[in-house]
Amino acid sequence: MSSIWNDFFPNNAEDVTSAAITALLKVTQQPSIISFAGGLPASECFPVEELAAAAERALVEHPIAALQYGLPDGYAPLRAFVAERMTKLKVPVLPEQVLITSGSQQVLDLIGRLILDPGASVAVEDPTFLGVVQAWAAYSPRYITLPLNDDGLDVDALDALLSHDIHPRFLYLVSCFQNPTGVTLAPERKRALIELAARHNLPILEDDPYSELYYNGVQPPTLAAIDVEMHGEPRHVLYMSSFSKLLTPGLRVGWVAGPQELIAKMAQVKQGLDVHTSNLAQATVYEACRTGLLERHIPSVRAVYGERLNTMLAALDRHMPAGVSWTRPVGGMFIWMTLPEQLEATALLRVALEEQVAFVPGTPFYAKTIKRNTLRLNFSYPNPAQIETGIARLGRAIRSIL
Amino acid sequence: MSSIWNDFFPNNAEDVTSAAITALLKVTQQPSIISFAGGLPASECFPVEELAAAAERALVEHPIAALQYGLPDGYAPLRAFVAERMTKLKVPVLPEQVLITSGSQQVLDLIGRLILDPGASVAVEDPTFLGVVQAWAAYSPRYITLPLNDDGLDVDALDALLSHDIHPRFLYLVSCFQNPTGVTLAPERKRALIELAARHNLPILEDDPYSELYYNGVQPPTLAAIDVEMHGEPRHVLYMSSFSKLLTPGLRVGWVAGPQELIAKMAQVKQGLDVHTSNLAQATVYEACRTGLLERHIPSVRAVYGERLNTMLAALDRHMPAGVSWTRPVGGMFIWMTLPEQLEATALLRVALEEQVAFVPGTPFYAKTIKRNTLRLNFSYPNPAQIETGIARLGRAIRSIL
Repeated sequence: MSSIWNDFFPNNAEDVTSAAITALLKVTQQPSIISFAGGLPASECFPVEELAAAAERALVEHPIAALQYGLPDGYAPLRAFVAERMTKLKVPVLPEQVLITSGSQQVLDLIGRLILDPGASVAVEDPTFLGVVQAWAAYSPRYITLPLNDDGLDVDALDALLSHDIHPRFLYLVSCFQNPTGVTLAPERKRALIELAARHNLPILEDDPYSELYYNGVQPPTLAAIDVEMHGEPRHVLYMSSFSKLLTPGLRVGWVAGPQELIAKMAQVKQGLDVHTSNLAQATVYEACRTGLLERHIPSVRAVYGERLNTMLAALDRHMPAGVSWTRPVGGMFIWMTLPEQLEATALLRVALEEQVAFVPGTPFYAKTIKRNTLRLNFSYPNPAQIETGIARLGRAIRSIL
Repeated sequence: MSSIWNDFFPNNAEDVTSAAITALLKVTQQPSIISFAGGLPASECFPVEELAAAAERALVEHPIAALQYGLPDGYAPLRAFVAERMTKLKVPVLPEQVLITSGSQQVLDLIGRLILDPGASVAVEDPTFLGVVQAWAAYSPRYITLPLNDDGLDVDALDALLSHDIHPRFLYLVSCFQNPTGVTLAPERKRALIELAARHNLPILEDDPYSELYYNGVQPPTLAAIDVEMHGEPRHVLYMSSFSKLLTPGLRVGWVAGPQELIAKMAQVKQGLDVHTSNLAQATVYEACRTGLLERHIPSVRAVYGERLNTMLAALDRHMPAGVSWTRPVGGMFIWMTLPEQLEATALLRVALEEQVAFVPGTPFYAKTIKRNTLRLNFSYPNPAQIETGIARLGRAIRSIL
């Protein structure tokens, strides 16, 4: 005997991708395993004291703002802060053009709900961010996948498609330090992409959690900034980002910035989803940021992650057998590895877990055709010693099945 | 010149219900207006100091739990707390049967996504909670509306439907101190409803934000508790609730409790929506609750709201002209008013706003056929003096258009 609510799911059909991620996130919590699997920021970098002080200021000085119901658009001072900061980063927007969301994952859901329907086509990078595939599964879009190389999205391939009258509803991409590959769209490709978008009226959704996490001293321009540079305003690019990698992910505060009409429409839909994003979280982020925390904090994150990236690249050079290749990003949180053709990353994962090291097989990052010999390595969460040991273990695991 | 993203919404088609609520929530922020429109708890009741202390404990003692990514199911100690508390309230569940959500609004979205599709029928009270209509608009269900009276849902009407082989996919209801009417399903009707559900295999979604907010000394049993009493477990009822009315709504922490398989499935889907609910909000709620805050706090809320309810009922008796009737709840946050047949609540609202008093017309609470002469009054947010003055103003407004 049990609940009749179970009758709704008689066959226990599972979204494999999502189940795999959940399982992997659980693995990362076992202390004996060195995990390159998650997409987690380094916990030891969290500005805990500043956030505790910010939460206290929010609750003591603005208790009603932090605790009462709010409007779906977001906490007004935070919208203004985000608009001002984006303007400084060369994408001038007004507060009314910013919607605060429950993490940037919610932006993906909102876009899916408003713009996608079964069979609608969306162009994405191949591979693409797995959260996209997860968020849009309910809307059953048709994916048009575009190849990537070390300079990012192959804009010529997109040009060829559009010239053959294949018009995706929009293009989704991570143009800086992409998840999962770590590659960045080269500035000349960014310009070419915006020109192409203008020629073919192609809307672009730019997901940008990482552009401020560069480790070579050079911040890459966002696609939105290039759009502004070329058109005086973000005309093709709808921009989304998050405080998850800049501050901490557990607060669940992200945003989307775009035309005011679309932002208002998204706010209206958001009200039916969760009324509004946690005001305590929003007010804490605002109180932390208004004292300049990001400017103090982000450089220290860059220093830590940059060291980890270099440690991982050096360890890969030392421990990987011939036939294994990987990207060499200069920012973000991920390196993408390609195994010899005949090796399956899922089979490798089983061996790797015996060696007490974890990663994510490439499988969930492919929106359409899966390449089974790829995998993603995260370098932001493990410390340099763990990276050193973990990559050595991974090298052993690969050699053992070569 | 503007963003080509606007092309997706050429006709600016609006969800009227949602726009109306947003507009009304904005009215409630004008200080000159006495508002009975919102569904807001009293800000002055918020346990600010205890929550500030809880947030600090969460951040200082458990910084990683509060700030790092978490699992979609929710913060484990909070799941355990909710399960234990529900067990005390006669609905025994395990932590794995509880999913923490971004407010209970998100439960509605999750249920819509998992169980509804265009044309699927759902039975609801007439009138019903407007957040339901908003949350499920995207899934285009067909509503079967069931009449209400002072003893709640007309169970015989449901019996008649089911006997005529009209089988809604499930029944949604607020069985205690309903929003918007304030009525409570009488205990004998609750038993009859569970019997009916058992006879016809009808799943029931019970939304229960208010059962602990009783002002007559008697806590009404939830439908879930009656289900347990009759079947030894919650066999028909999927139960959802929230900390919004027990503590504060701005944290956005709710939950749903039901069969473990369904909860796991909902967690998986939730991951694609917002990854997980703000950990800072969850950890703050947990740290506040584990010291017994609810047991200290809820009685004081009952005292304040009970006085406001009595003030409003007495003022209505004094100021309303003949032909106007209203419910006489003993808990919750709302009174439902019926105007003489020929009066439209929306027309009254325009006059009332000139008199500096606001309410919500009944319109958005009807899932199907609208009765235009009804309206909802909230008594939890305004203080007794405002209630006294506001109801006098409302009486004047009604008389002026009679």
